[in-house]
Amino acid sequence: MLILMRPDATPEQIDEVMARIRDLGFQGHAMPGAQRIAIGVTGNQGAIDPAHFARCAGVVEAVAVSKPFKQVSREWRPDDTIIAMNAAAGTARFGGGSFAVIAGPCAVENREQLLGTADAVKGGGARVLRGGAYKPRTSPYAFQGMKAEGLTLLAEARERTGLPVVTEVLDTQHVDLVAEHADMLQIGARNMQNFALLEAVGKQPRPVMLKRGLSATIQEFLMAAEYIVKSGNPNVLLCERGIRTFETMTRNTLDLGSIPLIKRLTHLPIIIDPSHGTGDWRSVPALARAAIAVGADGLMVEVHPDPAKALSDGPQSLTPPKFAEMMEGLRALAGVLGVSL
Amino acid sequence: MLILMRPDATPEQIDEVMARIRDLGFQGHAMPGAQRIAIGVTGNQGAIDPAHFARCAGVVEAVAVSKPFKQVSREWRPDDTIIAMNAAAGTARFGGGSFAVIAGPCAVENREQLLGTADAVKGGGARVLRGGAYKPRTSPYAFQGMKAEGLTLLAEARERTGLPVVTEVLDTQHVDLVAEHADMLQIGARNMQNFALLEAVGKQPRPVMLKRGLSATIQEFLMAAEYIVKSGNPNVLLCERGIRTFETMTRNTLDLGSIPLIKRLTHLPIIIDPSHGTGDWRSVPALARAAIAVGADGLMVEVHPDPAKALSDGPQSLTPPKFAEMMEGLRALAGVLGVSL
Amino acid sequence: MLILMRPDATPEQIDEVMARIRDLGFQGHAMPGAQRIAIGVTGNQGAIDPAHFARCAGVVEAVAVSKPFKQVSREWRPDDTIIAMNAAAGTARFGGGSFAVIAGPCAVENREQLLGTADAVKGGGARVLRGGAYKPRTSPYAFQGMKAEGLTLLAEARERTGLPVVTEVLDTQHVDLVAEHADMLQIGARNMQNFALLEAVGKQPRPVMLKRGLSATIQEFLMAAEYIVKSGNPNVLLCERGIRTFETMTRNTLDLGSIPLIKRLTHLPIIIDPSHGTGDWRSVPALARAAIAVGADGLMVEVHPDPAKALSDGPQSLTPPKFAEMMEGLRALAGVLGVSL
Amino acid sequence: MLILMRPDATPEQIDEVMARIRDLGFQGHAMPGAQRIAIGVTGNQGAIDPAHFARCAGVVEAVAVSKPFKQVSREWRPDDTIIAMNAAAGTARFGGGSFAVIAGPCAVENREQLLGTADAVKGGGARVLRGGAYKPRTSPYAFQGMKAEGLTLLAEARERTGLPVVTEVLDTQHVDLVAEHADMLQIGARNMQNFALLEAVGKQPRPVMLKRGLSATIQEFLMAAEYIVKSGNPNVLLCERGIRTFETMTRNTLDLGSIPLIKRLTHLPIIIDPSHGTGDWRSVPALARAAIAVGADGLMVEVHPDPAKALSDGPQSLTPPKFAEMMEGLRALAGVLGVSL
Repeated sequence: MLILMRPDATPEQIDEVMARIRDLGFQGHAMPGAQRIAIGVTGNQGAIDPAHFARCAGVVEAVAVSKPFKQVSREWRPDDTIIAMNAAAGTARFGGGSFAVIAGPCAVENREQLLGTADAVKGGGARVLRGGAYKPRTSPYAFQGMKAEGLTLLAEARERTGLPVVTEVLDTQHVDLVAEHADMLQIGARNMQNFALLEAVGKQPRPVMLKRGLSATIQEFLMAAEYIVKSGNPNVLLCERGIRTFETMTRNTLDLGSIPLIKRLTHLPIIIDPSHGTGDWRSVPALARAAIAVGADGLMVEVHPDPAKALSDGPQSLTPPKFAEMMEGLRALAGVLGVSL
Repeated sequence: MLILMRPDATPEQIDEVMARIRDLGFQGHAMPGAQRIAIGVTGNQGAIDPAHFARCAGVVEAVAVSKPFKQVSREWRPDDTIIAMNAAAGTARFGGGSFAVIAGPCAVENREQLLGTADAVKGGGARVLRGGAYKPRTSPYAFQGMKAEGLTLLAEARERTGLPVVTEVLDTQHVDLVAEHADMLQIGARNMQNFALLEAVGKQPRPVMLKRGLSATIQEFLMAAEYIVKSGNPNVLLCERGIRTFETMTRNTLDLGSIPLIKRLTHLPIIIDPSHGTGDWRSVPALARAAIAVGADGLMVEVHPDPAKALSDGPQSLTPPKFAEMMEGLRALAGVLGVSL
Repeated sequence: MLILMRPDATPEQIDEVMARIRDLGFQGHAMPGAQRIAIGVTGNQGAIDPAHFARCAGVVEAVAVSKPFKQVSREWRPDDTIIAMNAAAGTARFGGGSFAVIAGPCAVENREQLLGTADAVKGGGARVLRGGAYKPRTSPYAFQGMKAEGLTLLAEARERTGLPVVTEVLDTQHVDLVAEHADMLQIGARNMQNFALLEAVGKQPRPVMLKRGLSATIQEFLMAAEYIVKSGNPNVLLCERGIRTFETMTRNTLDLGSIPLIKRLTHLPIIIDPSHGTGDWRSVPALARAAIAVGADGLMVEVHPDPAKALSDGPQSLTPPKFAEMMEGLRALAGVLGVSL
Repeated sequence: MLILMRPDATPEQIDEVMARIRDLGFQGHAMPGAQRIAIGVTGNQGAIDPAHFARCAGVVEAVAVSKPFKQVSREWRPDDTIIAMNAAAGTARFGGGSFAVIAGPCAVENREQLLGTADAVKGGGARVLRGGAYKPRTSPYAFQGMKAEGLTLLAEARERTGLPVVTEVLDTQHVDLVAEHADMLQIGARNMQNFALLEAVGKQPRPVMLKRGLSATIQEFLMAAEYIVKSGNPNVLLCERGIRTFETMTRNTLDLGSIPLIKRLTHLPIIIDPSHGTGDWRSVPALARAAIAVGADGLMVEVHPDPAKALSDGPQSLTPPKFAEMMEGLRALAGVLGVSL
């Protein structure tokens, strides 16, 4: 149930509606928009009779929300959520017409590799540094990341470059530690429906980047975001990174066709990961162009100073010069598209 | 096996190589490129010893072609195949840096609808008119197209607008009739592995647009094109129209991530069909922008004067004004991307 | 629309209902069942008002058929369609509690190979001989079958063994020729939505085996059968042969979970092809047991005297002794399951 | 690397090989089989030179293990792992020719529902009781399970019926609590690649049931099991519960075709979950028969006394009488198949 207030509704009228919602045993959530306030109702199992609110002063309409996702839906909040990360090197802004690029190595491997890459991606125009400290690997015998030591290196890279840092968290028991070192927490594709972890990152204050699961429908993807928002954290940055299909010549199938639909369904910003989406650095610049053209709010790409020696995901990593070249191309497009890059 | 000749190889040297190929019981195919001639060898079951050709005058190298597709591969022919259709309204050109748009109704429904749409898409900047006369429908109870009468109307629309016409052929027994009326023959997604039909369109002179099957791998897609080329017709225009995945909120999953890979693998041009790819007209302009940005050679979009009354595919059809608006956006991007639209 | 007549409805009452259907501009199809007659109505675009028939004598009920498939649905015909093929070696019967096995080589390769295999599968208990004369191959450079010569050899094998023969038809132009030599026509997975071919085999009298397409939904599969039945041929034998999924360790994903559902939706018999379904002869006997246990009406398996030398599909072919061993196991299960094998 | 010892190898010879492995900086794992001992080597990044062991007394052969899974592979351990759970009501045994049935409600809803169902499934022949206390739900607004209270009820049901109990664990922080109350821990499909959780259940002593992820390949499924085994817990019971494909008429696509392959690849037992696999109770008995026929080691099915009122998964739950009827059918098949049920 979503209650739309008149643009000129008074604070007293809003309070009255909130009180009535509480009386019915539900929770009200006031959502200020550009033109008017909407009040979302949660806690109900089934439908609520709109008649409960029809005669309240200041109410335009009480509408049932048909989709299973509520707080993340456009009906709930018509205006774009903008995720802005302030940092020494400037503000990274996702959503509302701003397009930002996250770049860095797949995994933090050592101090030299990380700091060198951080300098390079900053030089190329990245707004956020990425780097994996805890690595989810299909094989228990593969490199599992530098863990806590990697977090320390990421913090050092932030000090040095002024770029905010995003890194993945794999376990509820690490959420506090990661949130202490990073500016944004990443939930990986394989944990998109790790509901305990979604709730845990929903209860801490850092923005969360949520990657779409390999076989997650758009609806499941938004429901996973709903878990985080419902737990108290409204700053969820969605990330489309390719889904699993029958095609094996590309690492995943990047679902760019879903972006306009997702933008209609939700107010949350969404970025594209063409590195995992294609699995081949040669395809990354073309898909980065497609991402900005299709209306996404940003990119995440993997960059490595020496891809051939990378401990993971070398074949999909750009070198620093190739990254800089890609950014050139995006800036030219951003001008034509009216996007702030 | 592919035999690369020196740039300065003489006609006599080429003839000698061709004769040696015939002596071995195989067929040679001379492929003139921008800088040199390559000679492809077919008819061999297994590998051929390169030593057979190493000592021939004018030969640079004899290389084994590892991929199962031969004549459609970049190794076979490094330069782009350009499909150019000359018509009264100008030339439609796909490939080699040219981007052309095909537009029109899903199905030819009646004279007024077709001619009105043809005028509108020409006005918006389309280079080719599409329209289905024979319609492959999931249900035998659905509208199956105007058939031969539809072909006559398409020919009339070409007379009127000067636009070349593309339409689908469903059966080997209709190939001659369709080729008589249309300028390009379309093989639909469901017939992508109808090998008898592929051979039939390979034996007539019109260019062929081959749509990727719903669950066709990239390799199978290129092998289907190989059937047409091997049968004698080198002018195959590939069309990515979305694949079938677990996602149901979009009609298909448009596989834009495969485009840079396909451009590396084959010299054939490839266009995108965002109408079938998304199933929703509201998503079409964004995906059209993504298509030109990712490096495709053209678009095919459905346009209908009154989508609500369309006999098929109304929800994914643009109105003429929306089509014109989309074309505006593409022209702005084409300038930045260095593409000729 | 389906009109259910009373068990004691008279022929005159039935005629009256048929006449009323014709008066409305539609076609009526009388479907005699075990207990009563049902009359199907086709030719209507939208819903028909049941009131047209409510007052007719002998009518129990007029019900709208909600599914898009009509004549193949259980609502249309509650009793199993039984496909019985009479031949010198006895009757092969699919459906209605009978389970029959079709076996033979993937492709007819030569006289000795075919006749030897035919003798062996007959000895093992197969009821129908299979063998491909026209072979649909992904590559135009692969063996395409012995074509008309293969048909002649199949006819010879039938003379010799008394087994009826099934073989694939690829093109509308070959339907008459294949129907002349074979007892059942096969539509392959890649042609499941070759609608011209479906109509062509629907207009000839031999039973048709229709294989499910690689990415065909159950609904599309039944709609393809509907094309054949609507064209006049009620004897369609469905064949589940595995669908295409992300899994690559098995050749296809055999969809046994759909069989009970398909048996509820349609009266047509359905068989399983574990050879294509798994792609590995070592898995075939276990899946054959699962097929009879899950309620399928038969099997189709590939058998080759020397799989290592087979021109196609060797890895999934059973040797004659392995085939005989598999049949042993099935006979033991048939007893417990109450199935006639 | 796997080192096969001679059947008559002495303990001293084995110790010597183990010492040499340690000297090289790796770990040795002695695996006693029916006829001989094999020693697995882990800790190596790349290949180890077999020459290191060729001259050791008692060694037959040192072979490279090509598959990425090691300890779960048949090469590592040729004999079936048998998971036996001893309980008051008798032993539940999975693997080695024994087939056991796990049954119970999707979620523990209240005391009466759980105890009533427990009595019923015991009466029908189930060997293990299932019931969800922590429920992973797509929506944060759906019933999330009775949590710790549900665990207490499960323990009570075990006391009452003598059946061992299996229940799902969702978070590393709950592993100890769940292991205290349950006899077997379940890892759900959505957590199959929650590597932190896999390691946590690998470090506690209860057997673990690992469900295949919705889009997990067979190789990823076995690698997830490898995580558990590598962490110290050899008792992993695999569970195939259907994968996600394009088909929507069944809840999932049950991948029975993979079972013979999985039995060849791994020594771990595998059971089938036809309730989630089909999503429809009417299909469950037929798929249960297929499961025993195809060679699986057991079943897990959902049973609810009043499916229409179930808080989750009602449509796929059997009633107690239907469950008893299904078990009858399985017993008849078990006799013919030589399986101990």
